[in-house]
Amino acid sequence: MLKLYYSPGACAMASHFALEEAGADYQLVKIDLKKGEQKTPEYLAINPAGVTPALVTDRGVLTENVVIVGYVAQTHPDTKLAPNDDSFAFGKMQSVNAWLGSSLHPAIGKVLFGRPPLEGEAREAAVKLALEKYDLAEQHLLTGPWVTGETYTVADGYLSVFTRWARQADLLDKGRYPRLNAHLDAVQSRPAVIRALEMEGLQRV
Amino acid sequence: MLKLYYSPGACAMASHFALEEAGADYQLVKIDLKKGEQKTPEYLAINPAGVTPALVTDRGVLTENVVIVGYVAQTHPDTKLAPNDDSFAFGKMQSVNAWLGSSLHPAIGKVLFGRPPLEGEAREAAVKLALEKYDLAEQHLLTGPWVTGETYTVADGYLSVFTRWARQADLLDKGRYPRLNAHLDAVQSRPAVIRALEMEGLQRV
Repeated sequence: MLKLYYSPGACAMASHFALEEAGADYQLVKIDLKKGEQKTPEYLAINPAGVTPALVTDRGVLTENVVIVGYVAQTHPDTKLAPNDDSFAFGKMQSVNAWLGSSLHPAIGKVLFGRPPLEGEAREAAVKLALEKYDLAEQHLLTGPWVTGETYTVADGYLSVFTRWARQADLLDKGRYPRLNAHLDAVQSRPAVIRALEMEGLQRV
Repeated sequence: MLKLYYSPGACAMASHFALEEAGADYQLVKIDLKKGEQKTPEYLAINPAGVTPALVTDRGVLTENVVIVGYVAQTHPDTKLAPNDDSFAFGKMQSVNAWLGSSLHPAIGKVLFGRPPLEGEAREAAVKLALEKYDLAEQHLLTGPWVTGETYTVADGYLSVFTRWARQADLLDKGRYPRLNAHLDAVQSRPAVIRALEMEGLQRV
């Protein structure tokens, strides 16, 4: 059985959404980031980088959301959570997921989770930079109602993690980000997403 | 024909190495980052994020090294640059590539390319953080002579971009990083890599 190491509300939600959408046979293992459980010897043996998510399979461990969501989609092809049979279309979707992980996540993460917390001008500069990434997402990421057009894929769940964070921080202005707001509402209306949020002890935002 | 937008010596080298290793039919288009060519309307029409690499195919554009190197490997299966027929093994390799893009790259990038350049204690802190990522790579990334064990994959070329940067900055200490140093030397001895470096007007380091 698959085992997902996650922390409630953190970026591993992307992998959790994918597993739940896929109807996968999996188990959740909670890692409390505030207690530093991601740095225990037990967890470092699973992911030496000391971050979540990690997906334990019967062959070994996969890390990084872009990889886990792609793997879940590919190994549950009936659920059509990615264009699995088309290298280019799959790569196009993964270009979005990789950008979310390497660009949007660090930008909004710096604003919300910087240690020590950013203040004053430093925070303003970080917010400005993060919002420019959301602008890019607003203008270019949603080619239809969903990221790849007419069909929901694992990229939609991943994107919603960061629009959720932004909305919780009052940064997802409805005038500036109409499409991202509508997209987040649509993602949060999906039964699998509602179930996953409940499993993490979270509410829709 | 494939068209790779790159900047000499920058991270797009990972995609360039993959194309050259694959014997792909491709054309290079140079983007001068110092002149800001990544922010021209022409380039933003190709990659709205305004960064390199971008790979133009006859179906559209792929971005992010982790995606491009995976795509090149999958579409040139005879060259065996990735375990293409095994979702788990492919994902395992991509976990490395995604980590390089989302974790090692920003950490060393902050040290080398921070604007304004970091100084004093801020630089020391950034160097310390970056070297901890190299420690992780030294201890966990090379499962054999190569990243995936006995066989060279596109992950080796990608890793070498960052060990190259570190060596150029005198940060890749041979005592602290014996395996990463040997790996960089091995990558730089490959004919395809030597050709790619020459095409970018660069020397082995």
